[in-house]
Amino acid sequence: MRVAVLGLGLIGGSIGLAARRRLECEVVGWGPNRPSVEKALELGVVGCAAGSVEEACEGADAVFCAAPVSALPDLIGTALKASGAETVVTDAGSTKRELVAAFGEDERFIGGHPLAGAETAGVANARADLFEGARWYLTPTERSSGILYDRLQRAIAGLGARPQAIDAEAHDRLMATVSHLPHVLANVLASQAAAELTHDSERMPEVGPSFRDGARVAGSNPVIWADIFTSNRGAVVAAIDDAVARLREARELIASGESGAVEAWHAAAGADRRRLSQAELAGGELHELRVVVANRPGTVAELALALGEAGVNIEDMALHPAADMQSGAITLWVAGKQQVEKAAVLVRELGHSATVLAEG
Amino acid sequence: MRVAVLGLGLIGGSIGLAARRRLECEVVGWGPNRPSVEKALELGVVGCAAGSVEEACEGADAVFCAAPVSALPDLIGTALKASGAETVVTDAGSTKRELVAAFGEDERFIGGHPLAGAETAGVANARADLFEGARWYLTPTERSSGILYDRLQRAIAGLGARPQAIDAEAHDRLMATVSHLPHVLANVLASQAAAELTHDSERMPEVGPSFRDGARVAGSNPVIWADIFTSNRGAVVAAIDDAVARLREARELIASGESGAVEAWHAAAGADRRRLSQAELAGGELHELRVVVANRPGTVAELALALGEAGVNIEDMALHPAADMQSGAITLWVAGKQQVEKAAVLVRELGHSATVLAEG
Repeated sequence: MRVAVLGLGLIGGSIGLAARRRLECEVVGWGPNRPSVEKALELGVVGCAAGSVEEACEGADAVFCAAPVSALPDLIGTALKASGAETVVTDAGSTKRELVAAFGEDERFIGGHPLAGAETAGVANARADLFEGARWYLTPTERSSGILYDRLQRAIAGLGARPQAIDAEAHDRLMATVSHLPHVLANVLASQAAAELTHDSERMPEVGPSFRDGARVAGSNPVIWADIFTSNRGAVVAAIDDAVARLREARELIASGESGAVEAWHAAAGADRRRLSQAELAGGELHELRVVVANRPGTVAELALALGEAGVNIEDMALHPAADMQSGAITLWVAGKQQVEKAAVLVRELGHSATVLAEG
Repeated sequence: MRVAVLGLGLIGGSIGLAARRRLECEVVGWGPNRPSVEKALELGVVGCAAGSVEEACEGADAVFCAAPVSALPDLIGTALKASGAETVVTDAGSTKRELVAAFGEDERFIGGHPLAGAETAGVANARADLFEGARWYLTPTERSSGILYDRLQRAIAGLGARPQAIDAEAHDRLMATVSHLPHVLANVLASQAAAELTHDSERMPEVGPSFRDGARVAGSNPVIWADIFTSNRGAVVAAIDDAVARLREARELIASGESGAVEAWHAAAGADRRRLSQAELAGGELHELRVVVANRPGTVAELALALGEAGVNIEDMALHPAADMQSGAITLWVAGKQQVEKAAVLVRELGHSATVLAEG
């Protein structure tokens, strides 16, 4: 199979590497800037580099457009013009509705979105296993060619990912809720706290672990996120409206002073959170283990090592350092009741205090 | 000095231990339930147990009320009645305005709030060093006795904490922004995602790391949080109103489709976040290191161990597992540019990909 990769960053580079190594494809690459293309050749991410999109698409069975969201409409349009009738053209952008609206009439275009790789950037970080086990959404329409969809879907499974078809609108709504809205809320939290805390310049800004978690992604990658928010503005605006409506309900509830009702609302949110994090996992229900430790170099290592040696996997972890950074608490999430109890015993043997949190 | 501790949970127990071990105080304890009192005696948290609040306060120089927020008004009222003219009465509740409104006229009452210990509960987890380096807010009024404030402030410093006077209203507003609001937003995020994802029952609920971070504290300890939200409802409602106003501005901005303005808004939030997390630290600016790893048991340990051995302290850490939990990314926060570069080299030597995130 001959694959064209247009755009040679982390995602394009990893598609190239995985296609070459795992599927033994012939991979031709094109990118808008020369250093990335040269790096891609040097790393073996592509077998050869094309001088233009047209040249890259020549004779390709599948074309992957891996450019920033705002560059995709032009790139996909050019790729479709340059590609033959038997070529499937796809992309890896974070939003899908706009692209499907623009190109969904063409039976060769099938939108895509791998849930991987947002953490780092650049072809230098490309890996053949970037997509291993990752969900890869595909947004075929009723106009899409069945043969081409089948080919694309197999290729993506061959890259190690788990392809899943989804309606483009539903995809964008889903992403608005579980990814774009959390980024908006993080921004609001960070800016609101900064305004409040710098209001009185004599006061030390001390923020708690809940703030640190909530604001963690505030302001990450402004260029990429401005693209995503703008491209998915319909669904993001709807998600914000929903959040505002829920906040106003919470406001009324809290203002009422009826602590029984507040407690029920709070507990329901906890049940929702657990439902989501459990559904995500194959390995059984997630349990929380709270550990109180000295925050010196090596403590996390010691803990993680003891658990690792005993075969207990840490599914997620959060550090909550005390204000002085000398001591603090660590929350560990472990799948399965038995495993978390085992973890608690190991942690206590190391002399730390450990509490398995009761559910509910 | 003779200290009375009313309420023998994690906080009361740790006050007792620290007062006995660090300040060599005589500590008398009282608690509403018998098993906790017996455990406290067994652990040496108190020197003796009193049969009533009145008995505990008899001859005490300082009385610490360490009960849940909703139980504090009654407890403090009883303690003030039972205490002599030279006794300072304080508490450890998360909200302060209500208590100061009720008891601020009494020169012996000075409200308090140690920022420690929310992670675990129960006297069994009490530690003499729980307050080491922790901020401990005190809310004296103009009616407060200077002599008693001085005594309390010294005692708290003696427990290892960093006392700081703050106006009760300002304290509650501050907590509303940096702690109570993040919990409200987490609840909204969890419930909204659960509603969206279970809407179409065929769709797998896959949530991203931004969601996991944002919803992490959703629904934790419903009884305690219903108390806090209700007790601090004025400031929490104001913080929600502010958040709603900010969300509506963000909504208009995103709806406008002006991606330059969206980018500027997003970047400003990032600057706010960094300003807050840097101000929090003594050890220099925090830098982010993104590491891509296999999520097998031992990986976190290996990383943390290599850093610990080289004297690089991990100030904060977040795991972002891929959907299959087989691979993922880890974000590490390290103080100081030189230290983070050192960490990156060490991580790469272990064969992982590591990227120091550019600021801005």
